Amino acid sequence: MGRIGKHSFELTSRPRIMASAAFVGSKEGEGPLGSEFDVSIKDDTLGLDSWEQAESRMFESAVRTALFKIGRQSDELSCLIGGDLLNQIVSSGFAAREIRAPFIGLYSACSTITEALMIGGMLTDGGFAELTACAGSSHFSTVERQYRYPLEMGVQPVPTSQRTVTGAGCVILGNEKTFRDSKKTQFTHAALTGGTMGSVEDFGITDANNMGAAMAPAACRTILTHLEDMGKTPDYYDRIITGDLGRFGSEMLYELCSAKGADIKNAHDDCGRLIFAEDQNTVCGGSGCGCAASVLASHFIPAVERGEYKRILFLATGALLSPVTSLQGESIPCISHAVVIEHED
Amino acid sequence: MGRIGKHSFELTSRPRIMASAAFVGSKEGEGPLGSEFDVSIKDDTLGLDSWEQAESRMFESAVRTALFKIGRQSDELSCLIGGDLLNQIVSSGFAAREIRAPFIGLYSACSTITEALMIGGMLTDGGFAELTACAGSSHFSTVERQYRYPLEMGVQPVPTSQRTVTGAGCVILGNEKTFRDSKKTQFTHAALTGGTMGSVEDFGITDANNMGAAMAPAACRTILTHLEDMGKTPDYYDRIITGDLGRFGSEMLYELCSAKGADIKNAHDDCGRLIFAEDQNTVCGGSGCGCAASVLASHFIPAVERGEYKRILFLATGALLSPVTSLQGESIPCISHAVVIEHED
Repeated sequence: MGRIGKHSFELTSRPRIMASAAFVGSKEGEGPLGSEFDVSIKDDTLGLDSWEQAESRMFESAVRTALFKIGRQSDELSCLIGGDLLNQIVSSGFAAREIRAPFIGLYSACSTITEALMIGGMLTDGGFAELTACAGSSHFSTVERQYRYPLEMGVQPVPTSQRTVTGAGCVILGNEKTFRDSKKTQFTHAALTGGTMGSVEDFGITDANNMGAAMAPAACRTILTHLEDMGKTPDYYDRIITGDLGRFGSEMLYELCSAKGADIKNAHDDCGRLIFAEDQNTVCGGSGCGCAASVLASHFIPAVERGEYKRILFLATGALLSPVTSLQGESIPCISHAVVIEHED
Repeated sequence: MGRIGKHSFELTSRPRIMASAAFVGSKEGEGPLGSEFDVSIKDDTLGLDSWEQAESRMFESAVRTALFKIGRQSDELSCLIGGDLLNQIVSSGFAAREIRAPFIGLYSACSTITEALMIGGMLTDGGFAELTACAGSSHFSTVERQYRYPLEMGVQPVPTSQRTVTGAGCVILGNEKTFRDSKKTQFTHAALTGGTMGSVEDFGITDANNMGAAMAPAACRTILTHLEDMGKTPDYYDRIITGDLGRFGSEMLYELCSAKGADIKNAHDDCGRLIFAEDQNTVCGGSGCGCAASVLASHFIPAVERGEYKRILFLATGALLSPVTSLQGESIPCISHAVVIEHED
């Protein structure tokens, strides 16, 4: 059976990662990973009437580009699983209207891409899906005005701020038969083999400008649960990768893990730290659903495909607050779902 | 394997519905189904500081009550799957913080309970979950101020309006082993046996006060896809039940289905029409995630348990708009996911 330990699971059929794609904004395109993304857009409205429409179009384009790489059409999808940060996940919902595949809408804040991969993997392994698109997106300009202030106000970031990534990432999963029968595939050596479902953690942080600190406990708990359920130590993985803890949150994660006897510092990467260079003025790094989704799609999956990493634990982290709950004085509940991606010979 | 036809699936292990519970508001408690709900609250703040906190507490209470009926604790849950209508699904997220089970957050507007059951059923059938809580909630006062106007303005409803249900419903699924080994169960004759994943439909309706009309095409498409995939006619089901099309949307559904050769009128019920009496001043009936969730939990599942209905097709319908997309002049994309619930001897 698929369940292992308390909250982990194994995908015994080892669903294949057949393709991936990422669309990002211009600032992300100028960052250290710039050359790895499929497209970096120059105008963050894409010439459309609103940033919201642009984000939705980026989501749709990431899915279509990933499908194009394996010569597939969207009507061949068993389902599209995904979400974003906007109220009522309208970027994903409106993209799903154009893509016209069965749509499983998620809300898991910045941990969306791992929630999508987890469900996509289980549906594939359970025989319910043959070809699945898992996707997530975020957009600096849509998020900033929804969660914080109108951009026109020019509010200064604080020392723990992170910049929401403008980006969308998509990962295409196929079952064994779909992979074998496919005339064309982007990847032949990457598989989704398991993971751990996250629970909500809340350490009482109320500062919505310090998401890294709020989310680190959720990441820590999921890592420790995963290692315990699987009976492994951190060195079992070539990399343990978080979504968007940023510089401050990553340091906090090391301390939290270390206090529980798990030293992960040397094996750890964080997409939020990788996507922007220190001189790009993003303070603690990037954040948003699109951060983990685009860095996974364009940087880490290709690295697993090349055999550079044999096995990675990838866990995006999400802060489940809303502006209303913050105004009502609530603290920030956070979650982190993890998936394991392995190199297949 | 689980997949049938284009978008449908069969749950061959027939996951058991072990318990269900519903918490509703006072107006819902005074309606035709009032005596069937577990609790109808008198004060819609529950004595808490905000309606948002009250909605979250109702969500949590529905889950805990359903678990209590089978003598289980929340830490025995493989996962909690659910969502609500609030931005960033904070009712569910904050409830998940208290419940502390692995949490799969969904956004599918008013079709959330069927999306949750669909995923819960697949995870159970695939061997990834032993005991799962699927839940959804909505609250008249949180939704009204988020989507429409401050309640204090006293805006008049239009002839196609529906009233958002204050309510939360939870359904507990167990796999064969959990069901067999359980010392206590509320239901012994109800199983989740299949369903159909919905795709996004948009007929170009832009009137956010006419959700029934916007959602009817999505329900129609899912019903027709389901019948085609399964090779069945509408009379295969004792009832075909929609979530919250209301009086106007239901009439539209009959016309749309009838134009495609499927006469469903005699077999059809709509939770939005059932939950309020005509003299309760709700115009076209009830709506919201909590409408379908509470009526399913307290009315339809018990009817299947008693053998009154041998087999029902239950499809909640969701409108994937946001106030921002409406203000930007967008039409309303809608979705409907369906599940089949059968009486087991």
